[in-house]
Amino acid sequence: MIAADWIAADWGTSNLRVRAIGADGAVLAEAASDEGMGRLSPDGFEPALLRLVDPWLGPGVTPVYAAGMVGARQGWIEARYRAVPCTPLDPAALVEAPVRDKRLRVFIAPGLSQAKPADVMRGEETQIAGALALAGGKDAGDGVYCLPGTHSKWAHVSAGEVVSFQSVMTGEIFALLSQQSVLRHGMAETDEGAEGAGEAFLDALSETLSRPERLAARLFSIRAEGLLTGLAPALARARLSGLLIGAELAAAKPYWLGQPVTLIGSAGLSAAYARALAAQGVTPRTLDVAACTLAGLSTLRRPRPL
Amino acid sequence: MIAADWIAADWGTSNLRVRAIGADGAVLAEAASDEGMGRLSPDGFEPALLRLVDPWLGPGVTPVYAAGMVGARQGWIEARYRAVPCTPLDPAALVEAPVRDKRLRVFIAPGLSQAKPADVMRGEETQIAGALALAGGKDAGDGVYCLPGTHSKWAHVSAGEVVSFQSVMTGEIFALLSQQSVLRHGMAETDEGAEGAGEAFLDALSETLSRPERLAARLFSIRAEGLLTGLAPALARARLSGLLIGAELAAAKPYWLGQPVTLIGSAGLSAAYARALAAQGVTPRTLDVAACTLAGLSTLRRPRPL
Repeated sequence: MIAADWIAADWGTSNLRVRAIGADGAVLAEAASDEGMGRLSPDGFEPALLRLVDPWLGPGVTPVYAAGMVGARQGWIEARYRAVPCTPLDPAALVEAPVRDKRLRVFIAPGLSQAKPADVMRGEETQIAGALALAGGKDAGDGVYCLPGTHSKWAHVSAGEVVSFQSVMTGEIFALLSQQSVLRHGMAETDEGAEGAGEAFLDALSETLSRPERLAARLFSIRAEGLLTGLAPALARARLSGLLIGAELAAAKPYWLGQPVTLIGSAGLSAAYARALAAQGVTPRTLDVAACTLAGLSTLRRPRPL
Repeated sequence: MIAADWIAADWGTSNLRVRAIGADGAVLAEAASDEGMGRLSPDGFEPALLRLVDPWLGPGVTPVYAAGMVGARQGWIEARYRAVPCTPLDPAALVEAPVRDKRLRVFIAPGLSQAKPADVMRGEETQIAGALALAGGKDAGDGVYCLPGTHSKWAHVSAGEVVSFQSVMTGEIFALLSQQSVLRHGMAETDEGAEGAGEAFLDALSETLSRPERLAARLFSIRAEGLLTGLAPALARARLSGLLIGAELAAAKPYWLGQPVTLIGSAGLSAAYARALAAQGVTPRTLDVAACTLAGLSTLRRPRPL
């Protein structure tokens, strides 16, 4: 029997991940479901949450701190974006969601917005806050954060504030092109361990990073080489990945050039971005995304009158 | 009752379009179905063709000349690519498909291939051949041909031969991003007649044409502006179109810069590309795609012993 002091919720478009946290900050239990924001109407969030956390609720009130798309306009309750420059998280800006179950109080962290160029993030601000908390002192987390994923984020942090950021749709475009476009023919499910995949990745990366105008033409050549010379499906995948990450690095060059870069992402994606950046002479450090999310949500957990 | 002298078939991945041609070259009848190559197994092509052309077949043998994906490896019978530089069509390279019905003979035109950069086309070579035939004399069709579509083609023609060409996946990427990515939220079905759409298109076009490295970052800003400032859905569509066509023009710059350009495409797409090129000081002429296809197939129709 677990009695959580509080509950950390990472609630994105596709998934809900919750952790029961003890009074000493230890993770007592974890659970996850595919009841992401994209599948829920506003009155579906509380039942979806209870399906995972009910066993962790004691006789009193257990607070839940949540980050991600749960706070979008189409989510449980809108937590309006905070405009940069600002700290990634602010406990005073939490929005409380309406609940029926008296054992719960739910607080949702807002995302960040930028007026020009127009940009938004939801969820990544919590990971950045976690990275800053893990770094310690006020300016110890200064630098650039790259959070690769469906919509990669690049954020410039100075004196504990997010100064500017930029989103790139690399992950989503990769998924669409590799699974639904003509490139799906002759495309492997993975390029791990394939001979020459690392070189194909770096060659393609270098091409669009140095000549970004070539992206549009080079994509179809993956298919053409498959037809004409039997390009191996694993190399096709490595090349597509390289072309798109190269285009992302070209777009984000002002962020990473000559800067200390921290990667926060899944192991596989972080490794690909680390290879890509290393080829440009940048050696990023890598942080675990789950650890950063928890550290970020922990900064919101303050003793407060419930 | 129609008795076709021959039948012209434009047989792509998604559609089959046939025309009955009289002895004097006049179009006697037209028909179309959605039985494209993508839906047919090899033994499904003859029945699909007969469903449309049976009423046009006389007592003798009627030849059918076909272009497009019907000649792909997964098509009716493979018509191997001819390598550029070469004329767009060659009657001697036609591949005859196996048929059961003795009233038919079916001849399929091969596509073109290019070794480096690897590229292929199937169907567009017939449209280019038609444009050359319509232009008349040997060198009268010299210049650059742009065939916008799912996979746009840019081809350089000199002395009646395709010297080089380049494919760009603009149409397919536009469809995937506008219908299936996060950008589908806040994206109109059309931008026709929307106030400011022309300006939004040209602004976006100019941005990726002059700074192609920005494409990756500017795509997501369409979504962010929708969330932050309520970007009108028609302007979102115009901007996506402009960003992608700008990236295509950046990739194809060696083709169109300072060259006479001919557009062969649907009316809507040709108009968008003509606007885009005009903004770069290039005034393309525009040809009707159906007329070019027919003129191309007509060059294959020679009196021959059946």
